[in-house]
Order: sequence, then C-alpha cells, then structure tokens
Amino acid sequence: MDQQAHTYHPAHFRGLSWLDALPGFANGSDTPRAYLERCLEVMAAREPVVRAFVTVNEAGARAAADASTARWKAGQALSPLDGMPIGIKDLLETRDMPTEMGCEAYRGNHTGRDNAAVWALREAGAVILGKTVTAELGGAHPGPTTNPFDAGRTPGGSSSGSAAAVGARMVPAAIGTQVGGSILRPASFCGNFALKPTQGAITRGERQATSQSTSGPHAATLEDCWQVAIEITKRAGGDPGHPGLMGPDTCPEARRPGRLVVLETEGWARLDDASRTAFEMLLEQMAAAGITLLRRRDHAWIETLERRVDGASAYGNAITRWENRMAHRALVEKNPDGVSERLKKVLAGAEAMRVADYQAALRERAEAQAAYAAVMTMADAVVTLTSVGPAPVWSGDVPGQPLNPRPTGDIAFNAPASAIFCPAVTLPLMAVGGLPVGLQVMGAQQRDADAVGVARWLMGKLTPVAV
Amino acid sequence: MDQQAHTYHPAHFRGLSWLDALPGFANGSDTPRAYLERCLEVMAAREPVVRAFVTVNEAGARAAADASTARWKAGQALSPLDGMPIGIKDLLETRDMPTEMGCEAYRGNHTGRDNAAVWALREAGAVILGKTVTAELGGAHPGPTTNPFDAGRTPGGSSSGSAAAVGARMVPAAIGTQVGGSILRPASFCGNFALKPTQGAITRGERQATSQSTSGPHAATLEDCWQVAIEITKRAGGDPGHPGLMGPDTCPEARRPGRLVVLETEGWARLDDASRTAFEMLLEQMAAAGITLLRRRDHAWIETLERRVDGASAYGNAITRWENRMAHRALVEKNPDGVSERLKKVLAGAEAMRVADYQAALRERAEAQAAYAAVMTMADAVVTLTSVGPAPVWSGDVPGQPLNPRPTGDIAFNAPASAIFCPAVTLPLMAVGGLPVGLQVMGAQQRDADAVGVARWLMGKLTPVAV
Repeated sequence: MDQQAHTYHPAHFRGLSWLDALPGFANGSDTPRAYLERCLEVMAAREPVVRAFVTVNEAGARAAADASTARWKAGQALSPLDGMPIGIKDLLETRDMPTEMGCEAYRGNHTGRDNAAVWALREAGAVILGKTVTAELGGAHPGPTTNPFDAGRTPGGSSSGSAAAVGARMVPAAIGTQVGGSILRPASFCGNFALKPTQGAITRGERQATSQSTSGPHAATLEDCWQVAIEITKRAGGDPGHPGLMGPDTCPEARRPGRLVVLETEGWARLDDASRTAFEMLLEQMAAAGITLLRRRDHAWIETLERRVDGASAYGNAITRWENRMAHRALVEKNPDGVSERLKKVLAGAEAMRVADYQAALRERAEAQAAYAAVMTMADAVVTLTSVGPAPVWSGDVPGQPLNPRPTGDIAFNAPASAIFCPAVTLPLMAVGGLPVGLQVMGAQQRDADAVGVARWLMGKLTPVAV
Repeated sequence: MDQQAHTYHPAHFRGLSWLDALPGFANGSDTPRAYLERCLEVMAAREPVVRAFVTVNEAGARAAADASTARWKAGQALSPLDGMPIGIKDLLETRDMPTEMGCEAYRGNHTGRDNAAVWALREAGAVILGKTVTAELGGAHPGPTTNPFDAGRTPGGSSSGSAAAVGARMVPAAIGTQVGGSILRPASFCGNFALKPTQGAITRGERQATSQSTSGPHAATLEDCWQVAIEITKRAGGDPGHPGLMGPDTCPEARRPGRLVVLETEGWARLDDASRTAFEMLLEQMAAAGITLLRRRDHAWIETLERRVDGASAYGNAITRWENRMAHRALVEKNPDGVSERLKKVLAGAEAMRVADYQAALRERAEAQAAYAAVMTMADAVVTLTSVGPAPVWSGDVPGQPLNPRPTGDIAFNAPASAIFCPAVTLPLMAVGGLPVGLQVMGAQQRDADAVGVARWLMGKLTPVAV
C-alpha cells in the first residue's frame, strides 16, 4: 500500500458519530459549532487527497451551526439532528449550492431549489455542509474522489463523495442515491453504515425519472443512519404514491432473527477467496448464536430466487438505460462534449432498445420480486456481502486503452436489492487486506425498520472479522 | 347564446378525422400539406375567439407536412399518423417551442427538448403544429381559451386548448394531461373523444412528479384517438416501471358488453336535470340492446365502490397538492408574482398538510382501487357521465369578488378514474341545451384496449341524444 493508506480494522475503526455527541450539547460541554469546526479540521487534513466534495458552503454551515448552538442552549433543538453537518450527493438540488451531477454539461447548474430531503434536513436543523462527488449523472464514469483507506483505490460509486466523506471522518453522515449499487457498494468500500431503503420510502424529490432508484443515508453508526432517514421522512415522506418510511422515532430495537437466508447472487462466482472466508466466518458466528441459516440447496424457493437475481445487473441496467434514454439523448444533442464517452456508450445501448426489450426486463424484475416475496415468508431477513471484495485499484482512464466499464466496482451484490425494491443495510463488519468490506442485510419490502432491527442485533452480536 | 355560439348536436357534428384522409394520401387525391393548410384556414377563422394555442410553429409544420407528403408519394409513410397535425398541451416540453405551462413564472421557458410522447409522435411522422393552452401548471387557474360551441363558456381545463382545438376542427388530435379531470372534462365540454389511459400506460416523459397524472389523446374520432395512443407507446412506452399501453396496432374491434355497472359518483347530486335525462336515455338504449345494467342498489360491492369514490375529489386533490408542494413552494419563493392567487391558495393548503394527512389520502385511494377491482370482476366496463352538465358560463375573475375555485368546471365525474388509475374514454353522445356532454366508459386497469372496444361498440349501437 502507498503512503496514503490507512489500514482499516472494523473492530478498531470508529467513524464520526453524531447522536453520541448530543449529551454534550445538552450539558453545554460541546456545541454544534465546535462539532462543525472539528469536521472542518478533518476536511482540511484529508480533503486534498480524498476529494470527497465538489462544493463546500463553509460560511453557510457556520451560520447554521451557530443557530443550532443557540437552539441547544435554549433547550429548543428542532430534532436529534439539530446541528448535524451532512454532505449531499451532487445529484440532489440545493438552494445554496450548484448541482453539477458530476457532468460537464451541468457545470454551474444552479436551480436555487432544495431537493425535498434536503429541505427536510434543514427543517430538522441539520447543517448542509457541502455537495459530495458523484459519478457522472449517477452512472459509472468516476469523479476525482479516492478511497479514504487507500488513495490508489476507488471509493466506489456513484455515491463516491458521500461514502468517502463519512469514511474519512469528515462528516457523520451524507446522502447518497442508488439505482444499481450506488449507495451500498461505496459504503462497503469506505467502512460506512448505509441504508438503501424500500423503493419509494424516502423521497427522491425532483429525481423521479427512473423506477428503481432511491435516496438513502450513509453514516458512521447504524443509529445515526436511521435517524437521518426517519427525520427526512417525518417531514417530507416518500415518493409520490408511497406512504414513506414507517418506523420508530429513533433506531429500531435490536431484533434477534430466527432464520436468515444466505443469498449468493451473481457475485458469488466473482468473490475473492479472502472475502468469502471473511463472510463464512460471520455466518459461522450466526450459526453459533443459534440462527438457522438457509441456503440455495435447502429450499427450492431459495434456488428459484438465486436464479431470478442472477441477471439483476443486466435487467436492472437495461431498465435504467431505457428510462434515462430521452434525458441522455437531449443532453448529448445539446452539448456533445458535455458528457463522457462512457455515457455515450450507455446511450448507444439505450438507443438500440425497443419497448419490447424494456417490457422483457420489467418482467424479469417482477419475477425476481415475486421469488423474493416467497422467500421472505420463511425468514426474518436475507444476508449476503455488499461487494465482491474490497475496493479495486483505480488510477484513472488510460488514453488509448479500452474503457473499464466499471471503474467504481462490480454491482453484482447490489443489483438484487435495487431490482427487488427491498430495504438493504450494509454493516462494516469485515476487513480484507486492511480494507473494508460490508455485510448486507436485506429485509422485506416496506419493512425497513425490521431490517434495521435485525442489522442492529447482528452488530451487537457479531465480532468483526479481518482476514 | 351569444353570436359566437355554434349550436351542437352529436348526431350532426363531425370533427376533423385523420385516418379517414389516408386513402386520399395513398391515391394522390390529397396530401398532408393540403390537410395542414385546411387546418390553418380553420385556425385563421376560429382562433381569434377560441384562443386554443399559445404558440404555433407554422413554418416548422409546413416543412414537416411537406416531408410527410413526399413520404406518402414514395409509399414510405412512417405510420398511419404520418403527416397528422397535432397540438401539444403546453405542459409538455417541445424542442422547437417554449413550454410556458400557463404560468407567468415560466414565460419564455425553452428547454430545447422533446417530451417522450412528442418525440414518439415525430418519429411516427406527425406534424407538431403548436402548443395548446393549459390552465396554470395543469391546475384550476384558467387561460384565455373559450368554448368552441359558446365563447361565453369555459372549454374546461386544464387541457383547455387541446380540447377546444379539436372541438373547433382546427386539428384532428391533441395531447392533454389529467391529474383530476383535465383530459376528460374539457373533452366532454368540447365534443371530443379522449382517452385517459391507465396510470403509467402512456409515457409522461419528464412529468413524473405526481402519482395520479396521465397524458392522453383528444381526437375527433375514437379510431384516431387510439391510433395516437398506440403510436406513442409503440415507440416510447409507458412511464418508468410500467409496461406501457397494450393493444392492437389499430383501434380495437367493437366489443359487445354483457354487463355494465352504472356509477353515480359524487357528481350525481350535482347533475342538472337535463343531463341526467340525456344519460338515462342512453342507459335505456343500452338496456334495450340487451345489456344488463347494474347499479348501487343491485350489489353491495357497487354500493361500496360508490362510497369509496364519493371523496375522490377531496383525497385526489390532497394527494396532488402534497406531491406538488416542493415545486410550487420553490416557484413562489423565487417569483412571488409569477403565479396566480389560486395557486397560492392551493400551496397554502399543501403547507398545512403533514405526512400523516398524505398517508390517509393514499389509503382512501387504495381502498377505492380495491373496491373498483372487486366490481370489475362482475362487469365488462363502468359507465357514467363525463361532466355534471355542459360547460358552465365563465367570463373571467371579477376584481374584488371571491375567486371561483373551479372556473373550468366540476371534477366530480372525473376524479374517480384518476384516483382508481383505470382507463377511461369519453364519447360525445349527448347534447344538453345545444352544448356537448360526454358519456364516460371506464375499464379495468391495464386493459385500455378492452375499454376502447366497449366504447367502440357503444358508438356503433347508440343513437346520440339531444335534450
């Protein structure tokens, strides 16, 4: 590893928690403004290499943190998030900062509006510190962010900056978005907790163009992760037509699972040996704790589900390509130099599709959802890895060489939860070669709180593993 | 009636059909360019009073019609719509014309992009003639359009210009949108055929912000209406996550219904006597043709459905208000003088809502959908009126007087199909006091073609009535 490497062990690494700081705000030994200044110090030290942020509104953040400090002193905090510095993926609109979407064609784009989740966070008193780097338009073309544990590796994408900012301890939480694996995979690579909610459970605001995309929190603790999600949805709800996240006002209680399904997905064949070993070590701990683990050989319904999610990357990508086709075409027509060659290739694939191809992909997705619903009648949750291993090495495109189609990593373990619309949580419970790898807990659709409860129980019970 | 009145009788009025002109294009006795010129002549005569269009691209339309004429001459028409002049509601983006949405704040807004349906129409060879007037942002604040059969009355809204342009014989078809009653009611008032499709069945393109809105065609014949819908969806499909309209390449065959449910809705109590009489005359014809008619007294499930749709205006409006809240708020904040007082009142109502209010409205809507699904197991379709009577008189807001909340008419008969997500067709089969009133045929969700087949059978069987 190079000199930028910060060797990671999940038992020793502690991210920057927020809720743990509240007693200090209440008793006056700490303030949100002081908390923010500590974040800014870490940013000053780490940001030149990590490059998690596109834009930082330091002045606005300081003013908001001062207002929050005054509210805490007056005993009038707006919510448990009052004063929390948070990063917003640069796909979401913010009234005080541009929204450039990692895309040259959107450089300087400033709508002057807040995305509904951003608005809700401000209502809860949170401090919108800055916009975090996204891969271009939430796709595969990476931004400049590096992995906070090894600058020679990708932070994952497309929520690259959100994951890296939390992993580098610059902020306690950040908002990401996922259409294939864009919240969970970078969270896995950067040692975050993260929640990819049930489709529609957390408002996407103005971002309604695709059918399997979500917004969700990255955070340093599971408790903070839930708190961000619930404070947003208490104020702004879910997507149009959806009831929004259901659950308690603070992190759901730990919920001991009786039976867990172990899902291999199409990622199993691409998993490195060390990561498989680490995952099997966690499974052994679960079995030792008395949990019944069910795998594809144990029940025909699980085997069916494995077959239905085996193509989730392919049909999920086809669905999203088609849904983005009109917008991407208009963008390229207006400004041919404003998008990457990677995006042009995705658009060319979309232009080759017909309605029948889209319908076929929708049917495959619906079959996976039906198979998952059947399996969820026999278990409390599903467990799998969050990535096929730790973050891969990435040092940028090489002129003249073929484009790496997935420089931010393989979506194999993330595509199923996106396609199934179910909630999925990633827990930083593994280290492989000194780098983070997440354990993924998938729940039943609309039962995000139950999935988080199972995840919380596992966090309390399992000893993190390093291989 | 004033001097602008054009007394209407559904047995005598003939709109401007398109498919009927195709034989002439094929044998060389007519051309799309000549057809367009006839449309422009009607526009020149009627538009000063009807005011259906915001923008007309005459030069672009002539060029497109000439290209179409050349294709027809070469035997290379792109589709049965090749050369069809069509109006586009000014809520949908068009690359060659501004999209001003009937809203001062959007004056001059020009995105340079085509809405997906507009793109598909161009791919099919259609001639995008102009943008039709919409009530402000698709809501209740009216534009300048007048009813083509009586200039002292509203054309209905929010698809005011689309309905009026077809009713005035300026164009054979136009695209409208409906969130409460914005396609069906103006179609009823202007003597159009129109299809409010299954939720999601016709792409809304960039307009995905609300959960019960649709795009759909207004046309002078049922056959043209279907042709516009199917040519769009063959090329651009439905909304994200939806398979899109399913059905044949030309208008579905007439389908004789065995049993029809007669739905009263909350509109029944507000229906004028003459319109009720006209509707009952049509029902008598159906009964005489051997169709079994089922009403609320005939089955408990129908009574339940009536109760569930009784609040459809209220819960549907609540849902839409909430879903538009962020966008309307941002608009008013940026440009307080750029929106109407009516819109500000709607926004104030939205700001008073909480997530729980939205969830309650969603639950009422879901219960109506469940009740409708039950009723659809016992009948081929549902019939009702499309409006509580002919177009009401409207001569604009009076300074100092309270705002009429519904200057474009009452949505009582339209709110159910919008909330239920089912397909609904309006047929110009009644005249009341020399003005059009539609018969509405509602089908089962996703079975738009079956609903159109029943509507086609009714058109062939029923004698239009005038009272």
